[in-house]
Amino acid sequence: MSLLVVGSIALDTVKTPFGERSDILGGAASFFSVAASFFTPVRLLGVIGDDFPECHVDLLRSRGVDLRGLERRAGGKTFRWSGSYEGRMDTATTRDVKLNVLGDFKPTIPDAYMDSAFVFLANTDPVTQAHVVRQLPGRRFAMLDTMNLWIDTKRDALIEAIRLVDGVVMNDEEARVLGGSSNLIFAMNALSNLGARLIVVKKGEHGAVMLRDGAFFALPAYPLDGVKDPTGAGDTFAAGFMGHLAATGDTSWSNLKKALAYGTVTASFTVEDFSLDRLLAIERADLDRRLSAFISMVTW
Amino acid sequence: MSLLVVGSIALDTVKTPFGERSDILGGAASFFSVAASFFTPVRLLGVIGDDFPECHVDLLRSRGVDLRGLERRAGGKTFRWSGSYEGRMDTATTRDVKLNVLGDFKPTIPDAYMDSAFVFLANTDPVTQAHVVRQLPGRRFAMLDTMNLWIDTKRDALIEAIRLVDGVVMNDEEARVLGGSSNLIFAMNALSNLGARLIVVKKGEHGAVMLRDGAFFALPAYPLDGVKDPTGAGDTFAAGFMGHLAATGDTSWSNLKKALAYGTVTASFTVEDFSLDRLLAIERADLDRRLSAFISMVTW
Repeated sequence: MSLLVVGSIALDTVKTPFGERSDILGGAASFFSVAASFFTPVRLLGVIGDDFPECHVDLLRSRGVDLRGLERRAGGKTFRWSGSYEGRMDTATTRDVKLNVLGDFKPTIPDAYMDSAFVFLANTDPVTQAHVVRQLPGRRFAMLDTMNLWIDTKRDALIEAIRLVDGVVMNDEEARVLGGSSNLIFAMNALSNLGARLIVVKKGEHGAVMLRDGAFFALPAYPLDGVKDPTGAGDTFAAGFMGHLAATGDTSWSNLKKALAYGTVTASFTVEDFSLDRLLAIERADLDRRLSAFISMVTW
Repeated sequence: MSLLVVGSIALDTVKTPFGERSDILGGAASFFSVAASFFTPVRLLGVIGDDFPECHVDLLRSRGVDLRGLERRAGGKTFRWSGSYEGRMDTATTRDVKLNVLGDFKPTIPDAYMDSAFVFLANTDPVTQAHVVRQLPGRRFAMLDTMNLWIDTKRDALIEAIRLVDGVVMNDEEARVLGGSSNLIFAMNALSNLGARLIVVKKGEHGAVMLRDGAFFALPAYPLDGVKDPTGAGDTFAAGFMGHLAATGDTSWSNLKKALAYGTVTASFTVEDFSLDRLLAIERADLDRRLSAFISMVTW
């Protein structure tokens, strides 16, 4: 089934202990689109400036991503993020952000996207997230991502958006803050009480845990000894998760478990190189092979 | 099969956001003995002073723990540890340590313990650990725990002890330091290259991961929203792990996986209350019920 993603498209400058790259393809929607394209056709809703290299557009097109929702703003500049990671690389330090065309982005949904069944609202203003999802009454399953900025500044709007969608995905620190507890499980139960139907929490190198209808499911991360750049891990985790759900059209609890495993292995490839370099070097069969290896590492 | 534990017996003073307790039963060998007694008969090798309350001795005896290796030093004082936990309670802050009789403890193995098949060397000087294990040629499976102090001050002796035993258990920070990498998987592979045959890494609320013969196995923690005191979590994790191995006499890879799950659920009870209070309030059937619930949370 079709999978729509709404979110940022960026030019990133990233520094890690393994090197530094400038103006590489980034942004939640870029990472999500390429990663989800292993599973199902993807529709992209986003905005770029006229400085955005045509080769990146070609790349997205080559992955079969529907670009009718890609707005190229004449005279505008693409969103730019610059960040660095040190030591264990478990947190990014933002060095510079220029919202540019993303600053006043009001997504207009093309008619051709109106029948989108699966929808992923990447991290953005929850007012915009709610606005988009309200225009898609035919959606079967929508999830949103968020960040501490919105938890701190637009908490009520965020909770309203969370109640509109079928699930939320966030990292553990965000879940602790929004759920109001340093205990993650307590915080997740609190999010459930706030109206979140499915809560998926990403814990980076510590795996992921989800909660729906009072039931928990948890997985460790795929064990990796060669992490080069964590940028995009969360977005491609969501892509593997949503991609598998959209491809199968099945949102049962047992399929959500498999989706969490697909999210885990998809993200595990992403962090093995900068930008989308590693994901672009593999095939779907590589994802499935790593999924099998992962299953043998977590079941007995 | 019999399970011998060598380690500290302490009187702890512990402060967490959920309260403060003074002079409660603590120490790695105490936690280990009580927790492992759910699985198999336990033999204890340790030292106390004549200030050690008789009720704690009675408690250990009531769990069927063999106390022929418990030395009560006349005129000496029991090892005391005072520590506190804040916020997420993921690290203990030591407020005071008095080694007392533990300071010059040289374990003498009673003849009745000489045929011990399974041996757990709780955290202590690696020279002492090596000395004990060398006196037990009939052992089938020995593991040791350690801490940053020995990694920093007696690295060579620690590596020598690690090569004598069948496995090591440590927390993730210790594994990163001893393995020489901020990447845990890289560090575990490095420990393997140093001569560790089985490496079990405890990650607290993030679960556990182990490595043997190039194969990894990982489990998340049991999801808990009511953690009161993390003291003893690592020791009772090791007790569930070693207890299951000793009870079954089976150290195959598939049984090690089940042992890791038993370690996880055993520790999950420990942290729900201070000292051994929670473990003393449950029965073996409670452990098995939680194991079943845990399995449904991690398999699909």
